[in-house]
Amino acid sequence: MAKQKRLKLGALLHGVGGGTSLWRHPDVDAGASVNFELYKSWVRKAEEGKLDLIFIADGLYITEKSIPHFLNRFEPITLLSALAAVSTNIGLVGTLSTSYSEPFTVARQFGSLDVISGGRAGWNVVTSPLEGSALNYGKKEHPEHDKRYRIATEFLEVARGLWDSWEDDAFVRNKETGVFFDRDKMHELNHEGEFFSVKGPLNIARSKQGGPVIFQAGASEVGKNYAAKEADAIFSGAENLEEALRFAQDVKARAAAFGRNPDDVLIFPGIGPIIGRTEEEAERKYQEVAGLVTIENALDYLGRFFEHHDFSQYPLDEPFPELGDLGKNSFQSGTDKIKRDAKEKGLTLRQVALQSATPRGNFIGTAEQVADRIQAWFEAGAADGFMITSAVPRGLEDFVDQVVPILQERGLFRTEYESDTLRGNLGLRVPENRYTMAKAEAVRS
Amino acid sequence: MAKQKRLKLGALLHGVGGGTSLWRHPDVDAGASVNFELYKSWVRKAEEGKLDLIFIADGLYITEKSIPHFLNRFEPITLLSALAAVSTNIGLVGTLSTSYSEPFTVARQFGSLDVISGGRAGWNVVTSPLEGSALNYGKKEHPEHDKRYRIATEFLEVARGLWDSWEDDAFVRNKETGVFFDRDKMHELNHEGEFFSVKGPLNIARSKQGGPVIFQAGASEVGKNYAAKEADAIFSGAENLEEALRFAQDVKARAAAFGRNPDDVLIFPGIGPIIGRTEEEAERKYQEVAGLVTIENALDYLGRFFEHHDFSQYPLDEPFPELGDLGKNSFQSGTDKIKRDAKEKGLTLRQVALQSATPRGNFIGTAEQVADRIQAWFEAGAADGFMITSAVPRGLEDFVDQVVPILQERGLFRTEYESDTLRGNLGLRVPENRYTMAKAEAVRS
Ligand SMILES: Cc1cc2nc3c(=O)[nH]c(=O)nc-3n(C[C@H](O)[C@H](O)[C@H](O)COP(=O)(O)O)c2cc1C
Ligand SMILES: Cc1cc2nc3c(=O)[nH]c(=O)nc-3n(C[C@H](O)[C@H](O)[C@H](O)COP(=O)(O)O)c2cc1C
Repeated sequence: MAKQKRLKLGALLHGVGGGTSLWRHPDVDAGASVNFELYKSWVRKAEEGKLDLIFIADGLYITEKSIPHFLNRFEPITLLSALAAVSTNIGLVGTLSTSYSEPFTVARQFGSLDVISGGRAGWNVVTSPLEGSALNYGKKEHPEHDKRYRIATEFLEVARGLWDSWEDDAFVRNKETGVFFDRDKMHELNHEGEFFSVKGPLNIARSKQGGPVIFQAGASEVGKNYAAKEADAIFSGAENLEEALRFAQDVKARAAAFGRNPDDVLIFPGIGPIIGRTEEEAERKYQEVAGLVTIENALDYLGRFFEHHDFSQYPLDEPFPELGDLGKNSFQSGTDKIKRDAKEKGLTLRQVALQSATPRGNFIGTAEQVADRIQAWFEAGAADGFMITSAVPRGLEDFVDQVVPILQERGLFRTEYESDTLRGNLGLRVPENRYTMAKAEAVRS
Repeated sequence: MAKQKRLKLGALLHGVGGGTSLWRHPDVDAGASVNFELYKSWVRKAEEGKLDLIFIADGLYITEKSIPHFLNRFEPITLLSALAAVSTNIGLVGTLSTSYSEPFTVARQFGSLDVISGGRAGWNVVTSPLEGSALNYGKKEHPEHDKRYRIATEFLEVARGLWDSWEDDAFVRNKETGVFFDRDKMHELNHEGEFFSVKGPLNIARSKQGGPVIFQAGASEVGKNYAAKEADAIFSGAENLEEALRFAQDVKARAAAFGRNPDDVLIFPGIGPIIGRTEEEAERKYQEVAGLVTIENALDYLGRFFEHHDFSQYPLDEPFPELGDLGKNSFQSGTDKIKRDAKEKGLTLRQVALQSATPRGNFIGTAEQVADRIQAWFEAGAADGFMITSAVPRGLEDFVDQVVPILQERGLFRTEYESDTLRGNLGLRVPENRYTMAKAEAVRS
């Protein structure tokens, strides 16, 4: 029997957990988003469960209306680097925006994290949905949605070029002859593009996994194309199996159209499992957490997707307001969906806000039931893996202690790491260095 | 008797060690600059010796003529963050340039490192001496020397403003009332300056040391003024006691003229102790290491201070060439000094290059002799502390094992950390939050 394809699993570490009000729960440390000891314990827990990776989200703009734990949280590069030192096999994936950064610095920091961690870095490339970000970076305006993706494309091209600055055997370090490196294996990039011009070489060589794994989370038309063309993995948000399957098929078809093997783009829907000894206990847990969210919290939460739009100005129990283009330049795919759903289903503002801030998800039940659901999505081709969010206190711990063993027993998930690199565990190839490849081709022809 | 003022000590961790050719030594791991396990062992050694801090240098541009271990080395923010997770008391100081970075990102990354480490971060503010840096950052030209310091001044003003975004008791996190933070203690910066405009607030609050310690290493006129006005500590390069004393008095007088207490600016000359059981053994160690440097290495090393100028074009044994303004826009104070010395002492190019690449320093001898010298500089007021570079293999280990105990015995250096923050150990005050202070003043008046 051919070796069964295995499920991949990541843990989204969000400090106090998903949602807007989980910090109020008695079992949650309300300061968790700046508590490094807690992050350390989660990474260890995730590694104990043989998870592929942990994932750190990010944002570049806050207002008093922001989700509370976004106001005061660790910056991903620093957090992941610190976590690298206290873990051995798990992937370390962080969000960083291409709209307000310099490719040389970003390539360097992720490259350095990749070497420090022994080949476990991943970069979730985002374009920054929040317009306000521009104000923290001295920019007159936030680049328009599709332009942000054009910038992101060139940015990643530069970063990948910089990661190839040194061929893998460039550093000979011959103490006898005094030759530290082979000049023929050091390469300037000399990139001159629409948005960036970068000479190189980068002052750090590739790790043994050949450069960070690229994640992406956009879901607009351009976002999906970007992911299908560029990404190794996609972090998606899907409400049900049908939607997830449609998304996966869509992105994989796009990847194929770009000439890629669809298996090389891994789809990770984000899910927030809520596990009880019985279905009723799980449901009670959900209700308890949902009950922490006031309608004001929910309106603020919703508002964030629409550039912190003030939804308290509308009547709560009338149809969702007409918003025109608001949100198009921000979380485009998300805001399009909210508007479409509200219209199609005739929802009120209250319904939309609560649905958004207290999503029930599809993964509430006993550990067996959650494992069944995961298996069903995986086997249907709706997911290559899942990104686990803590929707309730100890959400990650419950998942690792109760669901992972079932998945392992069913042969769906590993019992030991296959590799000590992220690419190795995800089953992704080490990308060939472009210059080494070109030389090999020149020899062949 | 009043408590004696104590010496401060830092360790400059440079991978393979100081100089251009130490990597060739049989006892050195030539790949040390990208070996995280080694960095970890050094930090532990430094912490065992109760050193105040470790220091990571940096640069943003390399060419084939660069010092070998600059070609492939860790990036400071990632390295320090990783080291934070494997240490408990030692300060973590890293170099970051204000000429090619965004204040929001830098304030955030150092702020995050500061919280992750529990108040142990330090930032060595540099303006980037190498003109080539511009080419890696899509800039037409490297800003001119004094302009770089004007940028640095505004940059630091913004960073400090962002670190004050949240008053220390802003996060009330009241689970009962659902109040996460006190809106009156959250502050937008709304900075609009010559070089930067940044709205804020920053999305991370100050650590318990109230923000990273500011280091500086410039020594030109503007550089010294900048340090005297802005810095908590200065990393200096001094060849002998007289020069170090002159520098210290100069900078402290400038600090006083800016209305500061001169004790609030700590001066750390960089030294590379070479310790032997006898003077002769120490001298042999020096000769052994100096012997690894070829004249070509030395010319490249010298060239780096002058924008990678090619010195191989000049005759070696004739007077040091006339270079005009070359170097003025780079390591200004350094290149001025090299030119001045060469002229005053009538040195040849060979002499200048070798002096620069194989400096003898003043700290060669037995452990007792090195301790004596350190004590003499300290008691003369030429130094508040020292930054220890590994000029020979196991330089840091020898220093911690052999010199530190003598300094401790003489009561010059601590035997236990006074604090778990960098400010605490350096005896620096926690800066007051500007808004908290303004409110207190408003109440008083
Ligand atoms: C599961 C998921 C996680 C995301 N994480 C982040 C994040 O950490 N930071 C961020 O700026 N945007 C994040 N986004 C937003 C995306 O980057 C993107 O802006 C958004 O999905 C809208 O996509 P579009 O611009 O292609 O329409 C995330 C989106 C999804 C679906
Ligand atoms: C001991 C010492 C350490 C330094 N470390 C760095 C460094 O890590 N990165 C850097 O770009 N410059 C470094 N410099 C250079 C200074 O930032 C500065 O550019 C140089 O001393 C010239 O100073 P001036 O510009 O005030 O003349 C260092 C200088 C000294 C003396």
